[in-house]
Amino acid sequence: MEIDPGLFQENERTAPSADNRRYAQIGPLDCEAGGRLEEVTIAYETWGKLNAARDNAIVVCHALTGDSHAIGWWSNLIGPGKAIDTDRYFVIGTNSLGGCQGTTGPASPHPDDGRPYASRFPIITLRDMIEVQIRLIDTLGIDCLRAVAGGSMGGMQALQWTVQAPGRVRKAFVTASCAAHSAMQIGFNEAARQAIIRDPKWRGGDYPPDDGPDAGLSVSRMIGHLSFLSEQAFAAKFGRRLQGKDRPDYRLGVEFEVESYLNYQGDKFTRRFDANSFLILTRAIDYLELTSLSASESEYLFVSFSTDWLYPSHQSRHLLQMARDAGCPARHVEIDLPYGHDAFLLDGVQQGAHLNDFLSN
Amino acid sequence: MEIDPGLFQENERTAPSADNRRYAQIGPLDCEAGGRLEEVTIAYETWGKLNAARDNAIVVCHALTGDSHAIGWWSNLIGPGKAIDTDRYFVIGTNSLGGCQGTTGPASPHPDDGRPYASRFPIITLRDMIEVQIRLIDTLGIDCLRAVAGGSMGGMQALQWTVQAPGRVRKAFVTASCAAHSAMQIGFNEAARQAIIRDPKWRGGDYPPDDGPDAGLSVSRMIGHLSFLSEQAFAAKFGRRLQGKDRPDYRLGVEFEVESYLNYQGDKFTRRFDANSFLILTRAIDYLELTSLSASESEYLFVSFSTDWLYPSHQSRHLLQMARDAGCPARHVEIDLPYGHDAFLLDGVQQGAHLNDFLSN
Repeated sequence: MEIDPGLFQENERTAPSADNRRYAQIGPLDCEAGGRLEEVTIAYETWGKLNAARDNAIVVCHALTGDSHAIGWWSNLIGPGKAIDTDRYFVIGTNSLGGCQGTTGPASPHPDDGRPYASRFPIITLRDMIEVQIRLIDTLGIDCLRAVAGGSMGGMQALQWTVQAPGRVRKAFVTASCAAHSAMQIGFNEAARQAIIRDPKWRGGDYPPDDGPDAGLSVSRMIGHLSFLSEQAFAAKFGRRLQGKDRPDYRLGVEFEVESYLNYQGDKFTRRFDANSFLILTRAIDYLELTSLSASESEYLFVSFSTDWLYPSHQSRHLLQMARDAGCPARHVEIDLPYGHDAFLLDGVQQGAHLNDFLSN
Repeated sequence: MEIDPGLFQENERTAPSADNRRYAQIGPLDCEAGGRLEEVTIAYETWGKLNAARDNAIVVCHALTGDSHAIGWWSNLIGPGKAIDTDRYFVIGTNSLGGCQGTTGPASPHPDDGRPYASRFPIITLRDMIEVQIRLIDTLGIDCLRAVAGGSMGGMQALQWTVQAPGRVRKAFVTASCAAHSAMQIGFNEAARQAIIRDPKWRGGDYPPDDGPDAGLSVSRMIGHLSFLSEQAFAAKFGRRLQGKDRPDYRLGVEFEVESYLNYQGDKFTRRFDANSFLILTRAIDYLELTSLSASESEYLFVSFSTDWLYPSHQSRHLLQMARDAGCPARHVEIDLPYGHDAFLLDGVQQGAHLNDFLSN
């Protein structure tokens, strides 16, 4: 497996924000865990046209730190002539409930006082996230989706769609994902959460918007990036190269390129993401524990990647078994690529071919 | 591969401190990276008796956060009748230079003013660590070691012994280790370092001994523990069990057992380890880059573990090739156990059998 360095573009995870973002007010939400939001806004974008039968819509769900601009972060799969073909399908990208890119989340103004919800934001679950998306397609006058699609957290959302809204989802594309986080996946999230929670600037969640726990949030992102790549991807991308020098400086500052990369990614993350959103969203996905797909009426395509150790292939094989046990048509493809978990964002070719075939038939 | 929960004992990584610890003053040290220590103390312990020929000594090198009490953290391999048989060998455990368990390190008093070295402690390398150990065996009147042995950082030290003191090391046991950290290994260390460095209480390294960067240090330890276990070990040990309850509390505090474990390990670590030592030692091992063993006159046993993804087996296979290229007798054994990197501490049976055979012949 050769590494193509060109595939590691910054914009894969940080596509510019949408310029056609819209918002829908979808009313109050009683959360599964007991909390309540009095008024929920959902940010979304669409590409392509809804047909007369209103049966060509595809909802795309983003991963942990993504946003509604799916055509940006999933440009390898979405667009004219791509697997999620905007010439054929009406594609809807939304920002998740609890996120920080337009949909109601911890950084949104509380209706009572206009200050951020912050520590007042309720714990949410995947059920709440999907409830908000269901109300959006109700607003758009769509009864049944052609498909839902997502990777990682987005794949978990796609799964939840199929059991929460049976009969409203024909097909589900679930890539680099799982039915329930393992102890190790929860563990990686917990270390990242603790980096934030133990930062004194987190202040129990009630930090000023311009003086948040940036130190902790950047470390949480470094932990994330360590889990997104495979060992061989790290080796191919950085090796033991020093950062802009021939000899070490022998100091505690950056010596190796990989250190520069992690610090850069960590710092950049603090400028686009809210620490409380990170806590709320990782909590939500850690809670998800789908033990059966028997409620589902969907057809599934599960994809996993050979070098993805964060969402390993055995989790997708388990999903395949769950779908078959539920009597749902399903297939699983393991793609042999060296990029680790990030492959679900980077691979348009193999993933795209399987997805195109799945959606077209 | 079945998991034996009994093997995960707390004391494997936190054996009680030695009660027979001794200290040797071994003079000033000019460090490879340019710094200088005016007076170095090395803390050590010994078990067994040095024979009349003075040729039965084995130096045991500890992993990143270990200490001289090798018979504690490596009780599966060291003791009467064990592979490193204290009835036959004179076993020497030392605390590494830069550590915080008696050997000169950043928390030691600076000779000028008695306050901790802290930010004044020089960057050190593996060469400096081994130079200190060489001076100790000089002090003890030992010319040639029967063996050096170590896992992880300890294995890297054992390797360095063989090229730095050729003719003074008959055999080297190197387990779960490597000749040079990969980008991913450096990356894990860097995220852990940044958790400390970005903690405002680190204060550029000059923190009061009783008010250090505990938040960052505990997060660094959580990152470490994530890398010590395999996915299957995490699953067997914790699964998705909640911590002392049947239903989630739906709050940001501890919900799952694995979260409790990581927080406990992180907090405990701050009570026994110095943050600057963590920085100095991880830096040292990241710098090591052995490209040849041609200077060596030792015989090698390399061991790796099938589920150790932090120090994967291919690194030990590479070491085997390096030893053969250097004309040194060498063998490599990959042991199939589910415990991840921690296997080098947990496995006395298989590792012990190979080591016993290696040392006896």
